[in-house]
Amino acid sequence: MQNKANVLLIGCGGIGTIGALNLELGAQATVTAVLRSNYEHVKAHGFCIKSIDHGEVEGFKPSILRNTIPDLTTESLPPYDYIIVTTKNYADIPPSVATLIHPAVTPGHTRIVLLQNGLNIHKPLQSAFPTNIILSGVSFCGSHQVAPGKIVHEDDDELYIGAFRNAGLAPEVEDAAAQDFVRIYGAGGKCQPQFNPDVAFSRWRKLLYNACLNPICAITDLDTGRIQLAEGAIEDLVKPAMREIQAAAKACAGVELPDETLDFMITMDPITMYNPPSMQVDVRSGRFTEFENLVGEAVREGRAKGVAMPTLTVLYGILKAMQWRTKEKRGLVTVPEAVDHTVQK
Amino acid sequence: MQNKANVLLIGCGGIGTIGALNLELGAQATVTAVLRSNYEHVKAHGFCIKSIDHGEVEGFKPSILRNTIPDLTTESLPPYDYIIVTTKNYADIPPSVATLIHPAVTPGHTRIVLLQNGLNIHKPLQSAFPTNIILSGVSFCGSHQVAPGKIVHEDDDELYIGAFRNAGLAPEVEDAAAQDFVRIYGAGGKCQPQFNPDVAFSRWRKLLYNACLNPICAITDLDTGRIQLAEGAIEDLVKPAMREIQAAAKACAGVELPDETLDFMITMDPITMYNPPSMQVDVRSGRFTEFENLVGEAVREGRAKGVAMPTLTVLYGILKAMQWRTKEKRGLVTVPEAVDHTVQK
Repeated sequence: MQNKANVLLIGCGGIGTIGALNLELGAQATVTAVLRSNYEHVKAHGFCIKSIDHGEVEGFKPSILRNTIPDLTTESLPPYDYIIVTTKNYADIPPSVATLIHPAVTPGHTRIVLLQNGLNIHKPLQSAFPTNIILSGVSFCGSHQVAPGKIVHEDDDELYIGAFRNAGLAPEVEDAAAQDFVRIYGAGGKCQPQFNPDVAFSRWRKLLYNACLNPICAITDLDTGRIQLAEGAIEDLVKPAMREIQAAAKACAGVELPDETLDFMITMDPITMYNPPSMQVDVRSGRFTEFENLVGEAVREGRAKGVAMPTLTVLYGILKAMQWRTKEKRGLVTVPEAVDHTVQK
Repeated sequence: MQNKANVLLIGCGGIGTIGALNLELGAQATVTAVLRSNYEHVKAHGFCIKSIDHGEVEGFKPSILRNTIPDLTTESLPPYDYIIVTTKNYADIPPSVATLIHPAVTPGHTRIVLLQNGLNIHKPLQSAFPTNIILSGVSFCGSHQVAPGKIVHEDDDELYIGAFRNAGLAPEVEDAAAQDFVRIYGAGGKCQPQFNPDVAFSRWRKLLYNACLNPICAITDLDTGRIQLAEGAIEDLVKPAMREIQAAAKACAGVELPDETLDFMITMDPITMYNPPSMQVDVRSGRFTEFENLVGEAVREGRAKGVAMPTLTVLYGILKAMQWRTKEKRGLVTVPEAVDHTVQK
């Protein structure tokens, strides 16, 4: 019998908690979960989960709960075999993921699983940890934390695991690591991740949702049900954006995204679910959005290959302006004082 | 001495009230103002105005206050020489302006002054009232009603009056009507409107603001000060949109809008005024926007002449989706009932 994998999970919201549950269920891993805002609640009560895969689960706790990132230089802890990062990834807002996880990474050993969206998210990690395998997790798991520790999981957990290629490492070793993670994650039997040798394919494919539907819902404040009902929104906004991703995927990575995949992404969330995608939830809550990784990188990659990205360019500009607004609200930028301009001439 | 003009003013918010004040001050007109939400307040207290042109004015009341549109078929009233319409003009939300003012119009006599924004707003009026002169009022008057009857007027009242051409009427008669209106509006001495023989020029010129800055501020919820401060917003969003209006104005109406005019519109509102333009105020208040006349008509006109309008097309699609959201909130459209999708498989 194999030893259990020592897993550090950073971010225990909708996606992270379902991941912890799958890993603990399979008994092939011991999960140390780092919680932030929900730490006190979960420590006292555990998670309350209502899930399409797991049913109703009361009081679930990962093996170890923490509210800080472990620091292996000062704490006497065994090295982590895997660090799974499910936090938001804001390319423009410090700290970076690399800075965040740095104290917990054992060089040459820890495999870093980025269960996060967008393009090129591995690049800063490969720079910071050149001897570590970086895995890609692309998840279609509609799961939200609706209150501290309360998780509603209403979409099938569909997870694609592959390795981001690192020129300094052997591809077969990287792929074996991805397959090992698939094994331990799937051992619980409730979610069978798929080994995904072509990470570019799954990442560009998911951008059909995340660079198109997600920002359009966020900007218009229409959820994925209403965006299908609102006259013209799919044909005039969503599809033009998706066709730009389709063209860029082909030009940048040789990835073919058939038209049926566009339609699949549009109708994936049933209308009557009225699901607000993550970016819409973020905007509604006054939080930052991952617009740089989801839209900005796609626009930059596409344009670099000469693909016209008119729709995504405008969406990107709007999201950037909205991020600035959030930065102002959070004190990251300040503006000159207002002046009374009603004084009579 | 000439008789006073009998003027009916429909819509007495920020722009309408300053118009009523100018007209009554000049003593060349008697103003009947139709008020809606602020009627009771103004009847009791008058308007309280703080104005860059007029200073502080307490208790101002137009000659006659009403809360209904006069119906000349049932009320014994003299005909109106002018009907000035300053209400919002929603092409997609009934009732239309023509329907609204119909009972007060004397065919062949009443001149209808559309102190409203956008392109092609005269077309439904010319269909409904083919023997009436329709005048165009393009106003750059930063004036807002900040509470019932309380008007803050902080931008110079810059008003361009001209005639929309009607093939069935004589241009010199139309122009004389426009000049007569300029005379009675300017008689008070606080605002001298300009006679504007080229209505297309002033309407396309104002679209630089109203089809570009206005929707971009509304969508991003950044006012005209913050949009100048937010990194990239002017160069990546506002200017591309303005260049599309510039190209369409030339192609559709032979109107030359020099680059300096683009810069002028961007910096017209000083940063420290932090002025939310009208569409941003509408969105913040959950009201409909005039997106069809401001953006939709420009996109349709430009495209019909083969002008590429990629930025404005996206803005138009977003505004249309936002309007649908407002329609749903106001019960003009309904959606299917939500279904619980968390039930375990």
